[in-house]
Amino acid sequence: MQVSTKSFTTCEPPNELILESGDQLGPITIAYETYGTLAPDKSNAILVCHALSGDAHVAFAHADDPKYTGWWEHYVGPAKAIDTNLYYVICSNVIGGCKGSTGPNSINPKTKKPYGINFPVITISDMVHAQKLLVDALQIPKLLAVVGGSMGGMQVLEWAIQYPDQVASAIVIASTPCVSTKSVAFDAVGRNAIFSDPNWKKGNYYDQAALPETGLATARMIGHITYLSDEALDTKFGRKLQSRADYGYDFDTDFQIESYLQYQGNKFVYRFDANSYLYLTKAISYFDLPKKYGSLEKALSSVLAKFLVISIKSDWLYPPKQSKELVKSLLKLNKEVTYFECDSSYGHDAFLLPNEQLFELFHHFLSKVSI
Amino acid sequence: MQVSTKSFTTCEPPNELILESGDQLGPITIAYETYGTLAPDKSNAILVCHALSGDAHVAFAHADDPKYTGWWEHYVGPAKAIDTNLYYVICSNVIGGCKGSTGPNSINPKTKKPYGINFPVITISDMVHAQKLLVDALQIPKLLAVVGGSMGGMQVLEWAIQYPDQVASAIVIASTPCVSTKSVAFDAVGRNAIFSDPNWKKGNYYDQAALPETGLATARMIGHITYLSDEALDTKFGRKLQSRADYGYDFDTDFQIESYLQYQGNKFVYRFDANSYLYLTKAISYFDLPKKYGSLEKALSSVLAKFLVISIKSDWLYPPKQSKELVKSLLKLNKEVTYFECDSSYGHDAFLLPNEQLFELFHHFLSKVSI
Repeated sequence: MQVSTKSFTTCEPPNELILESGDQLGPITIAYETYGTLAPDKSNAILVCHALSGDAHVAFAHADDPKYTGWWEHYVGPAKAIDTNLYYVICSNVIGGCKGSTGPNSINPKTKKPYGINFPVITISDMVHAQKLLVDALQIPKLLAVVGGSMGGMQVLEWAIQYPDQVASAIVIASTPCVSTKSVAFDAVGRNAIFSDPNWKKGNYYDQAALPETGLATARMIGHITYLSDEALDTKFGRKLQSRADYGYDFDTDFQIESYLQYQGNKFVYRFDANSYLYLTKAISYFDLPKKYGSLEKALSSVLAKFLVISIKSDWLYPPKQSKELVKSLLKLNKEVTYFECDSSYGHDAFLLPNEQLFELFHHFLSKVSI
Repeated sequence: MQVSTKSFTTCEPPNELILESGDQLGPITIAYETYGTLAPDKSNAILVCHALSGDAHVAFAHADDPKYTGWWEHYVGPAKAIDTNLYYVICSNVIGGCKGSTGPNSINPKTKKPYGINFPVITISDMVHAQKLLVDALQIPKLLAVVGGSMGGMQVLEWAIQYPDQVASAIVIASTPCVSTKSVAFDAVGRNAIFSDPNWKKGNYYDQAALPETGLATARMIGHITYLSDEALDTKFGRKLQSRADYGYDFDTDFQIESYLQYQGNKFVYRFDANSYLYLTKAISYFDLPKKYGSLEKALSSVLAKFLVISIKSDWLYPPKQSKELVKSLLKLNKEVTYFECDSSYGHDAFLLPNEQLFELFHHFLSKVSI
């Protein structure tokens, strides 16, 4: 089976979306995909929220390019943990992104040129407000589940908080209710690398042949280190040399880990927009439920969803401690919550990889929820 | 009291230093300082080895600029833990550095131009060989102690291994016998940021007005995150905002941690050479005693020094686990070793800060050793 990415446009002026900053954004196009069939009683819709570098294409082969498989195809599909024979699955590209939804590379209707950094700074909450308009347009009154890892998990939390009547269950994976100083720090250095790239030109590079690729690649390389645990780094790469019998005593690549990071950095620049990287990491750095709502308990006080919170034992970017804080607050408020610390040694990115524990958890949890 | 930096030149052609790579380097100038008075029987000499961004100026005010205090002034001086009333302390800038010793910014006698990246790749062992020539020139047959943290600790290890008869005791702080994949990875990204800076120009930038400052600043910012523990990041900065009552919803600095990293990055470029950063991080990445000597035990089998090994509990760059491997091997070989895990919550950089535990340890350990 193949899927196509669809698009939905909303918030046409003068009905722009009011952003958390107070700015307005419109029109807004949202790129999205759907899989499976919506039940006649609309009881089987699951919204999947993607992480920093994801897009709307969560599963199946893409109609435009059958080799373009979904970023969560291990988990979403017929007879998979999120079973598209049973559920109607929706995934949309976040606003601020660069995969079809309105973002800094979109044309600003006022200037007829790409927004660049005149695009307004958006937050996780703004992403969720835009998704809500899509879900409304799809005429789904209540979601059976909202599911996401990392930045996707932050969206899940805002969904459960802001639309308590419309979220029956929430699955938050390898995420946090409040982004740590360390994560803010790494993302700030990544943005700094982009700002420092002479091809960035204050975000006005879309008509140039040379794009801010080196800055974006550096940012991505930093990110990739934080996505891997010490154990994964040691086991997968260790101090193994790349295509050399011994040290080269030069500045070419010596170690496999160097080669891996360069490969990841170089690959990323072909599929991601540097300005989007700035906007999405800024949204992540701003994510702080206690700040926004007064305290974590205040933030969660009105949620009605059943929660499944999953942390990755070896995740040092959003460590289990942060998920536990979320769980503690939910328990204190007598909310229904299941917590699981996944025993993967892979680090933060474990939620993107096939994992038997996650299969079981999703399958079991979803089989017990209803709208 | 004030001190001046002295310099010593050796390895004049055709007597160049043979490097670990097989390349030759000469002449070599070594910038060094000495404090205190050498005892008539030469029994009180202590060599201090500096870390990545250090220099020969370990203590006292500098004669050229009294505000230029030493990088380890808390620990070295009259009546301090390394007491210059008792000991004759030597510290030299490593080769490959940029603080007076021969490095990539030195004039290549063959071309009459700065070496740039024609400077040979050097290793920790090469740094130590050059220091040995200085110690010989100072006519010190045996060092009472060799002391160093981080990259300095690696030099201490090579001293104890290569010159067992000339090192009575060794103090290794916040270091490792083998640099981890994670550390290699962060340093590779830092070097990549320098390579990507258009002002780097393959290392030939010394006659330019514009230096590769943005690349070096990015590298330093990455480094600074790794030098701080999660606790230090959270306590010192947390999510506190910089000069703003609320988020700015723009790409200016929002958080104190961003401001701190930018400050550290910008400050560093005025005092450090980008090419030296490449060479010294490469030397660190190459540091792997088990690889070089066959195994850690083989590496340490001939050492005669008494060891004091200190790790920092909250150090995630060179975590205690790595110091423990060193200690385990020393114990297995029946070497004299004292191990202490310093309870600082500050992270890797704790060894540079005043710490009562470290004062006590240095003082007590040194009072018990003799040549």
